[in-house]
Amino acid sequence: MAESSSAKPMRQQVEEYIVTLQDQIVTSFEKLDPKAPPFKRDAWVRPQGGKGQSCVFACPAGDAITSPLETALEKAGVNISIVHGMLPPAAIKQMRADHTSMPLPDRPTGLPFFAAGLSLVVHPRNPYAPTVHANYRYFEITEPVVESESDKEPTSDPKVLAWWFGGGCDLTPSYLFEEDAVHFHTVLKKACDAHGDQLYPTFKKWCDEYFFLPHRNEARGIGGLFFDDLNEGPHARLPSLNSPSDDAAHRPTTPAEIFSFIQDLGNSFVPSYLPILEKRHALPYTPRQRRWQLVRRGRYVEFNLVYDRGTKFGLMTPGARIESILMSLPETARWEYQSELGAEGTEEGKLVEVLKSPREWV
Amino acid sequence: MAESSSAKPMRQQVEEYIVTLQDQIVTSFEKLDPKAPPFKRDAWVRPQGGKGQSCVFACPAGDAITSPLETALEKAGVNISIVHGMLPPAAIKQMRADHTSMPLPDRPTGLPFFAAGLSLVVHPRNPYAPTVHANYRYFEITEPVVESESDKEPTSDPKVLAWWFGGGCDLTPSYLFEEDAVHFHTVLKKACDAHGDQLYPTFKKWCDEYFFLPHRNEARGIGGLFFDDLNEGPHARLPSLNSPSDDAAHRPTTPAEIFSFIQDLGNSFVPSYLPILEKRHALPYTPRQRRWQLVRRGRYVEFNLVYDRGTKFGLMTPGARIESILMSLPETARWEYQSELGAEGTEEGKLVEVLKSPREWV
Repeated sequence: MAESSSAKPMRQQVEEYIVTLQDQIVTSFEKLDPKAPPFKRDAWVRPQGGKGQSCVFACPAGDAITSPLETALEKAGVNISIVHGMLPPAAIKQMRADHTSMPLPDRPTGLPFFAAGLSLVVHPRNPYAPTVHANYRYFEITEPVVESESDKEPTSDPKVLAWWFGGGCDLTPSYLFEEDAVHFHTVLKKACDAHGDQLYPTFKKWCDEYFFLPHRNEARGIGGLFFDDLNEGPHARLPSLNSPSDDAAHRPTTPAEIFSFIQDLGNSFVPSYLPILEKRHALPYTPRQRRWQLVRRGRYVEFNLVYDRGTKFGLMTPGARIESILMSLPETARWEYQSELGAEGTEEGKLVEVLKSPREWV
Repeated sequence: MAESSSAKPMRQQVEEYIVTLQDQIVTSFEKLDPKAPPFKRDAWVRPQGGKGQSCVFACPAGDAITSPLETALEKAGVNISIVHGMLPPAAIKQMRADHTSMPLPDRPTGLPFFAAGLSLVVHPRNPYAPTVHANYRYFEITEPVVESESDKEPTSDPKVLAWWFGGGCDLTPSYLFEEDAVHFHTVLKKACDAHGDQLYPTFKKWCDEYFFLPHRNEARGIGGLFFDDLNEGPHARLPSLNSPSDDAAHRPTTPAEIFSFIQDLGNSFVPSYLPILEKRHALPYTPRQRRWQLVRRGRYVEFNLVYDRGTKFGLMTPGARIESILMSLPETARWEYQSELGAEGTEEGKLVEVLKSPREWV
């Protein structure tokens, strides 16, 4: 049952929400830096079913390597996609590992799916302004439409066999400002706490585990939230509900409750990040600090290409929109052999220390 | 049988060869650009068994982002490693997919392995000078040494259960000079042809298949050679030998013959690449051409982090030397959303065309 008490199917509610949220987020960035070029709004249609819009920020490089414009952002993408199609049995089988409500892969034709989400990555230009990522998504598996009935008038939406919400957001600074980390986590915690006590601590921990580079033995950044497979069923990481009055285990379970949680998170993105960007984007910095930022962006590339599930899934999907998937990569990244940057006792080293042992910020 | 007719075990012969080859290659680069800083020679010991030496070229960046030195090379690594240890049953099982001579993973303690190889990646500074990669390696699996006999005087080397050679090299230009591609392939073909007619065409095709980015639908560069699992047994890609007089299927099969082929390839690296670098490293270029080179280096990063077997294997190996594994990454790389560079009819587009449909160069 993926339909809320509202008359509208959940897929339509989610679509309407992410369209509005995308516009709100993009407009906020454009207002913060009115002299910068606007985001490029790039609508696309997926021939196999669905559509989307990538909103991308970049400064035209022209004949120079680095844009002479001192914009707040260097590269950013705020993308939405609303797609549907048939999920082959192999993909169903693979997804069952993380989604216990997924039906068995027992139909040779697979099953219809619907997926809608907003995904953003923002790389500011100033080394003191952190990179941020956020993602909110809804997934649905439905009964196949019976072929012999296809000439009849459609009477209702197809029956939903499985559904879930997922998402998260995380902050990746090059230099540590504790007050920024505290602000970011405080806003996220507040959005979570309205929907249950266990959400923030559980999803904060999950984020620290997920955005981690084993080969560097360090986190990608100072964390945030990560969650998946939220629906009315039991959840692998959240306590089970024994009774409706069980306060400690209280969490959103109906589609309407979970969607409300997702909306609160989505709406908290701008207040969680924009004040930080505003404070840091015009601080003076040296070429050495820029160099460290580019080394950190190299680690961001390593995480996204080697570990990120969404990126890997996208790269393996025939016909996927590569430009949208890889918009998460920074404009420039750098790799140094045994860099002397990041040594203990330096400003750079303070960040490294926090990446080695994740902290509780609130 | 991994021992040649020489009295020395093959592992020792390979070690001596790659030590000499590393020095020869590094010295050649240093002679070409005497004003540049020398390679940093960085010897290391692996606590679990073995040793190596990374020879790395980089210009100290100091407080600048880009070195002010106009050196021929921007970043390069010429690494050797000679390591041994126990290969766990899971790794044996995985390697059997590509190496049919590998014993069954039926001993819970695994089996001793020995691996020696030279691996190099050179990223020049000038956008007209191509990146090059080469790798030559020898692998051996032996009988475990029986514990109860360990206090006896060792009487002989452990029995070799399986062995093979592998390697290859490929050229990755940002701008296409057909004469460079022809030169590179001509030198490689000559080294191959002395050992059998089928080696060059088979390994050239294998290289085009291996250094390919499915998500971009393009090759990494203009190819070269790639091969693996060369030993006395049947080979998945080479014709089988029906009789010793079967000229069409003639190929090196004994350890001594294959090692001789590997040495000819290793010795051909400098003549295959240095003349190209010499011709291109000082050509005048514009910031726009530098920008295109950095975009192409982004693709190089994508290949190495997403597809390269050696890199992936290295990243997943606990205790691996990450700095050596990732020395293959360029100093700087760039990602642009829907870049206008590389359009049909431009100099950049000429390269893209060749990457989309690999050519026969000789």
